[in-house]
Amino acid sequence: MTATRDDHEIIRVLKQELFTAVVGDVLDVMGLRKQFLPAQISPLQPHMKIAGRAMPVLQADIFDDAAEAACGPLARKPFGLMLEALDSLKPGEIYVASGASFNYALWGGLMSTRATQLRAGGAVVNGYVRDSWDVERLDYPTFCRGLYAQDQGPRGKVIDFNTTVEIGAARIRPGDFIFGDREGVLVIPREAEQEAIARALEKAATENEVAIAIRNGMGAAEAFEKYGVM
Amino acid sequence: MTATRDDHEIIRVLKQELFTAVVGDVLDVMGLRKQFLPAQISPLQPHMKIAGRAMPVLQADIFDDAAEAACGPLARKPFGLMLEALDSLKPGEIYVASGASFNYALWGGLMSTRATQLRAGGAVVNGYVRDSWDVERLDYPTFCRGLYAQDQGPRGKVIDFNTTVEIGAARIRPGDFIFGDREGVLVIPREAEQEAIARALEKAATENEVAIAIRNGMGAAEAFEKYGVM
Amino acid sequence: MTATRDDHEIIRVLKQELFTAVVGDVLDVMGLRKQFLPAQISPLQPHMKIAGRAMPVLQADIFDDAAEAACGPLARKPFGLMLEALDSLKPGEIYVASGASFNYALWGGLMSTRATQLRAGGAVVNGYVRDSWDVERLDYPTFCRGLYAQDQGPRGKVIDFNTTVEIGAARIRPGDFIFGDREGVLVIPREAEQEAIARALEKAATENEVAIAIRNGMGAAEAFEKYGVM
Repeated sequence: MTATRDDHEIIRVLKQELFTAVVGDVLDVMGLRKQFLPAQISPLQPHMKIAGRAMPVLQADIFDDAAEAACGPLARKPFGLMLEALDSLKPGEIYVASGASFNYALWGGLMSTRATQLRAGGAVVNGYVRDSWDVERLDYPTFCRGLYAQDQGPRGKVIDFNTTVEIGAARIRPGDFIFGDREGVLVIPREAEQEAIARALEKAATENEVAIAIRNGMGAAEAFEKYGVM
Repeated sequence: MTATRDDHEIIRVLKQELFTAVVGDVLDVMGLRKQFLPAQISPLQPHMKIAGRAMPVLQADIFDDAAEAACGPLARKPFGLMLEALDSLKPGEIYVASGASFNYALWGGLMSTRATQLRAGGAVVNGYVRDSWDVERLDYPTFCRGLYAQDQGPRGKVIDFNTTVEIGAARIRPGDFIFGDREGVLVIPREAEQEAIARALEKAATENEVAIAIRNGMGAAEAFEKYGVM
Repeated sequence: MTATRDDHEIIRVLKQELFTAVVGDVLDVMGLRKQFLPAQISPLQPHMKIAGRAMPVLQADIFDDAAEAACGPLARKPFGLMLEALDSLKPGEIYVASGASFNYALWGGLMSTRATQLRAGGAVVNGYVRDSWDVERLDYPTFCRGLYAQDQGPRGKVIDFNTTVEIGAARIRPGDFIFGDREGVLVIPREAEQEAIARALEKAATENEVAIAIRNGMGAAEAFEKYGVM
């Protein structure tokens, strides 16, 4: 085994040497088969990659129409705990929000401005993003289901953060590694990250060999038999 | 209150100074919470903006397979009232079509050519568009659910126009203002338009102040407390 | 009638002179109304066009979790018959895959490398594609539901090829012509292809005349009455 990689090195390797396909493949081999977020979650711009530890944020649809009479602890607090969640971001952390219906934006321009100040690592939301011109100007790595300007204000709130959430089949715990490119977003569980990175680098090298063999005329069946990779 | 803005000025302000997020926010505050069309309706090209008064068009799936025997008034009329609807467009008006299944194109190249001749303001269709190369060459502001060349001819017709339609949760009456950019399409009811524009300009200015404060290090919670905006 | 066109000439005409809208229109007139694949299937890059004879490939969701005990003939064969299907491609043929859930990639980089070696004509998959950087570098015409890196390996297999498949309402037999651009993908049945191409060329010429008439001020209703086209 190679030496243990620290966070800085993991982020460098993920962003510069790897891609989600090869990391997902080795997680599959390691028996971790529910690590991809749904295919509908993609980067705001195709070139964006994201890598860092998750700070999961739990959303809920809470309407403000009868807020004065409602009994819950957050009914009258605008955005619920969203501002506190945002201000809590540590350098490199990724704001990962889920729990809301797909009817309003969970991330926007002022949030990106604040997160950039805090040197956070990006945002992954199971929903929409707005103020995309601001987010793009900041080049803040943002993954989402697309653009939609309808406001969260009277429709939803953050009800908890730094807690565990699920998006599609994937469970995301605080501190799990998040890795995304234009082909998807992966959750790499903390206990698997060292092995996954080491194996992914090996598999990427083998895939390059297979590509060369195929370009030199080897058949797909023969290449798979020889290299065990396709 | 500022002086009343005429149509020409409203269109200029919407296209050059505002964006759907801020106008949607002030409509929310005014109690108008169902003004966004569904998130799936977006511009043919990201730079396209649309602003103008709605000329709503009602579609229906009407198949021509047994048209000779069918009893309705439009069964044997190709496209139903589509050509009449198109020819009726006044300068600045927006063709807003809904009512069909999402299985064929509701707008295309020859329609854009005719609408451009009439100096209409654009098209918003709750469905697909075809002949996109022509539409783009004309730079005709067109919002839709994407591209699909399957023809309306034997599958659907316009059954009425200059009438009220609904798209998603939004109701669109003849003459309501339509405003769209790459983050969505808004319906601004006629009776709310003057107040909405005035308030949106104010809110946009405040948001700029908040962005500066955050870039200078203010926290999100503190900024919201001070400015009431996030 | 014009002379019969050979495959090489059909491909040239489809790619250089026609587009799916006009070919779909003439198939409609010929009574062939279920020839478009679903609108969600589009090219990896907007400029990509595809034309060639179909080599249909049948997929199924087959998980490898209890493969040792499973009784089917393909349970223990990685990817099922995918490698054989790929290696069987003849020059100009299009790999057309369907049958899987939309949860993993049906086409990727090494497959594109092999298909390019075999001078195949492209790929149309009713699902996702991965290794999109490789596919784009090869400029291999690839149509799909989008990008998603999740691997087919432990989730799905090719269970047959050179057989008939359905995608949406369209049935695709071995040797049917496939034609796609950014507005959709058409299946042109073998027995209709000569007539469809000849008619489509005529209709495209008429549409150009109509566009000129409209640009010169003719109304849409009048143009339809004169030319029978809109």
